[in-house]
Amino acid sequence: MTIDTDSKAEFKQTPTWNNVVAEKRSTQLNLIPESWRLPAEVLVNPPASSLEIIRSSGILSAEELEWTERTDIRELVSLITSRSITSQQLTTAFCKRAAISQQVNKCLTEIFFEKAIQKARQLDEILVRTGEVVGPLHGVPVSVKDRFDVEGVDTTVGWVGLTNKPAQSNSSVVQLLESMGAVLYVKTNVPQSLMMSDSYNHVFGQSVNAFNHALISGGSSGGEGALVGSRGSVLGVGTDIGGSIRVPSVAGPMATSLATTEYFMESLLKSDPWNIDPGAIPIPWRKELAAPPTNRKLRLGVVFDDGVVKPQPPVARAMRETVAALRAVGHEVIEWDTSLHVPVTNLWTRGILADGGQHCHSLCQIVDEPLIEGMVVGTDKDLLTIQEREKLEETKYALQTTFLKQWVGSGIDALIMPVLPWVGYKPKTWVRSKQWLGYTAMWNLLDYAGVTVPVTRADRGLDSIGSGLDVEWEGHVIRNESDAFNYLQYDIDRVHGMPICVQIVGGRFGEEKAVAVGKVVDELINPTPFHS
Amino acid sequence: MTIDTDSKAEFKQTPTWNNVVAEKRSTQLNLIPESWRLPAEVLVNPPASSLEIIRSSGILSAEELEWTERTDIRELVSLITSRSITSQQLTTAFCKRAAISQQVNKCLTEIFFEKAIQKARQLDEILVRTGEVVGPLHGVPVSVKDRFDVEGVDTTVGWVGLTNKPAQSNSSVVQLLESMGAVLYVKTNVPQSLMMSDSYNHVFGQSVNAFNHALISGGSSGGEGALVGSRGSVLGVGTDIGGSIRVPSVAGPMATSLATTEYFMESLLKSDPWNIDPGAIPIPWRKELAAPPTNRKLRLGVVFDDGVVKPQPPVARAMRETVAALRAVGHEVIEWDTSLHVPVTNLWTRGILADGGQHCHSLCQIVDEPLIEGMVVGTDKDLLTIQEREKLEETKYALQTTFLKQWVGSGIDALIMPVLPWVGYKPKTWVRSKQWLGYTAMWNLLDYAGVTVPVTRADRGLDSIGSGLDVEWEGHVIRNESDAFNYLQYDIDRVHGMPICVQIVGGRFGEEKAVAVGKVVDELINPTPFHS
Repeated sequence: MTIDTDSKAEFKQTPTWNNVVAEKRSTQLNLIPESWRLPAEVLVNPPASSLEIIRSSGILSAEELEWTERTDIRELVSLITSRSITSQQLTTAFCKRAAISQQVNKCLTEIFFEKAIQKARQLDEILVRTGEVVGPLHGVPVSVKDRFDVEGVDTTVGWVGLTNKPAQSNSSVVQLLESMGAVLYVKTNVPQSLMMSDSYNHVFGQSVNAFNHALISGGSSGGEGALVGSRGSVLGVGTDIGGSIRVPSVAGPMATSLATTEYFMESLLKSDPWNIDPGAIPIPWRKELAAPPTNRKLRLGVVFDDGVVKPQPPVARAMRETVAALRAVGHEVIEWDTSLHVPVTNLWTRGILADGGQHCHSLCQIVDEPLIEGMVVGTDKDLLTIQEREKLEETKYALQTTFLKQWVGSGIDALIMPVLPWVGYKPKTWVRSKQWLGYTAMWNLLDYAGVTVPVTRADRGLDSIGSGLDVEWEGHVIRNESDAFNYLQYDIDRVHGMPICVQIVGGRFGEEKAVAVGKVVDELINPTPFHS
Repeated sequence: MTIDTDSKAEFKQTPTWNNVVAEKRSTQLNLIPESWRLPAEVLVNPPASSLEIIRSSGILSAEELEWTERTDIRELVSLITSRSITSQQLTTAFCKRAAISQQVNKCLTEIFFEKAIQKARQLDEILVRTGEVVGPLHGVPVSVKDRFDVEGVDTTVGWVGLTNKPAQSNSSVVQLLESMGAVLYVKTNVPQSLMMSDSYNHVFGQSVNAFNHALISGGSSGGEGALVGSRGSVLGVGTDIGGSIRVPSVAGPMATSLATTEYFMESLLKSDPWNIDPGAIPIPWRKELAAPPTNRKLRLGVVFDDGVVKPQPPVARAMRETVAALRAVGHEVIEWDTSLHVPVTNLWTRGILADGGQHCHSLCQIVDEPLIEGMVVGTDKDLLTIQEREKLEETKYALQTTFLKQWVGSGIDALIMPVLPWVGYKPKTWVRSKQWLGYTAMWNLLDYAGVTVPVTRADRGLDSIGSGLDVEWEGHVIRNESDAFNYLQYDIDRVHGMPICVQIVGGRFGEEKAVAVGKVVDELINPTPFHS
């Protein structure tokens, strides 16, 4: 970053961005009560897993640990509505857990525990007084990505220049969550600009993976991934413009069970979001579509490799095992022609870069904050004119039409494929990875729904190079720079034990279908719940 | 239009645009069989109404007249499926009627009668052979606006530069119509650029009103309006970006009965358009919403005057009579606060003009065709930068959110208001009218559904200035240029007898609600069908 050459700059009263950050982080830390802080000796050399730290911290009672490790939100709602526990108890438990998680994996941005516990107390009083719940999430804490406005706290979205500008009102998702009876208590970390799969920014630093602190937690909903992964939240609400809620390696979009995901979707849509949000479409959760068909087997498409970047051995194995398990019980799995995947992904990239990075640069300029290099942010040469943008929209529609024809013509219920070609990165490596986002971003351009389901773990025994178990990987000929990076950075010792998800794409407006197929895969592969 | 200064221009082989037009019109005329042409003496001084000319032409048999004057498409489907008549008979009747209509009101662009009759014959054969229909519109002719691609014929959209470039494939609406068993036979006229409420262009000339040839038929679906108005089509498919299928004065969007509109919507949505069109949303026709509630009265909002342009006396009376009739049977009608109408309309206008007219100019340049002045087309000063467009999108979302709050908060079933503040214009007057499109265009920006229903006719006795029946009009103080134009151009003698519609807005995704309220108004005001 160069020095501001504006002559008035010398007289600016604004503190430099480093000071702003120091103050923001200090404020953030002070919002964690002393009794919930980890001792210095743990912080100096913490275990690799947030879960291990939380479980052995002594900060949560046995009961609190038990509640927060339940993955099906319906059980928590039921504990509250049956008055087995109070919302205040549950909220306190999740606040503690989120607080510990934050200390070791930096998942949070805004913290408002006091307000949350006060809100929980109010909800408890309402239930006692009226015998009625406010809504389907009565008293259950829910976390949101730092992209949604929560009145009274910042929405920095990872930009220093947006700190200390508390939101004046709640965004519509937050309004809906409150109308459903949820208790908001934290917001979660994101990358600067949202445009990388590594949640790092100058305001809140680097989020890391709840299962292995040496690795990243993905992005752009990586803070949410780390929080949900550590069970510091039973349900997080994220957004996704290129893979954001799929790349963080948790089971399902920002929850640790498909049941929670479905309960949330169904409840959210029952609250008529289209009555407050002009972008919402009045389609309820179609429960019948979310149930696996009982009178026939599934017909599924499969992509093992999109032909651009070859998935690393644990991912390839996850795919092979999933397809084998599906075929073994009679489901039909056909190879999917990926010839449209490259043009679709390239168009997504052109669209994302189309402003030439101007929006990001203007956000940097507020406090002379440097831009993090290597994110998916445009430069001058990517800037599209208005006519080029219109052309891009036409091309998009044409590609969507062609793809839809392929999809409908194939007669598949869903498509199964890797979420990513890689397993894990060390922090700040992703920005050097040449960014092939085809496995996820193409579905954003097409506007197709998907879920991710963990099916196995990277395993030193099964996924080592030279073990002869993945002959394709061993005979692989490098295809391009992205593929080379992905090939060369693979190290089973670094990622051993990490969960591997598959992605299930349900098509346009195919949320329920994706969940239906997700249930089939989950029950087939994980007969006992997938626990970390 | 200046001379092309490009040095290569002298060597161009392209004929000048006037030659292209002469050839196109001659081709078009030759597609009307000799026996369906009106004699010169009728064309020299034709009666004012297309209907009168058609009925007295002797070109249609009594039976053909009877079939084509039915307004409920379900009756025509039933005549065919019960084999009382053939599709070939019905198609021939509508082709004749469209041919006559074209000669007196210039409603058509592309004509393909032969192909249509051949298609009808095929459909008849299928029905005889299999006993099955192809779809819910089996054998019924349907017309489409010249904005949709029909394989093998031009889609000029009113531009000379786009003539003689036959479409290579059918657009999705046309594919769907064919899958429903409809017979396409003509495409209908539009304004150059689509951006005026007067369907005039250099290729096909001036469409005029089927009920009064001295007046325009509106736009941009004005050709369709003239064709449907003359009963040359029982169902036309148009598009609407600022009022296009509402301004042509026909009952309901491009049909002469609400039953036809509803049958079409229901059938179209049953054909799963979202399987071929990535822009379609998978919501079926919700029949329960399209039925007026039986257990309660309606709650309706009303706008008599949006405060910008005062509606002319026949429109004001139509509104008063409609509201009085609704109140008389117990429906609640509340005054609607219009303070958001101006900002919403202004934002629509900014968006429409945002390309500074570049798209239109590039279409003009293909053959050095002049731009028609006065349409809603931008100039250099309207050109928005990318940042300004992004800001516009944000403002749009904010306005949509605020308006939605007003709408949901009011608890209304629908809003009733004028379609237009005027009744009729002579050709080429609209472009001088200062273009206040607020009554229709605001709903396009908000994306709210509406229908129009005719409720009365302009009447010399009831709507003359000085009759004392409209005291507000007589005491009216001019508000602005648009209002002045509208006030001064009113002439009851010119528009006596013209149908006046009201607009019923059903809200976002409120198609069915608009139809439900439309049925109530229609049955209350027009106990016998509104015939022209």
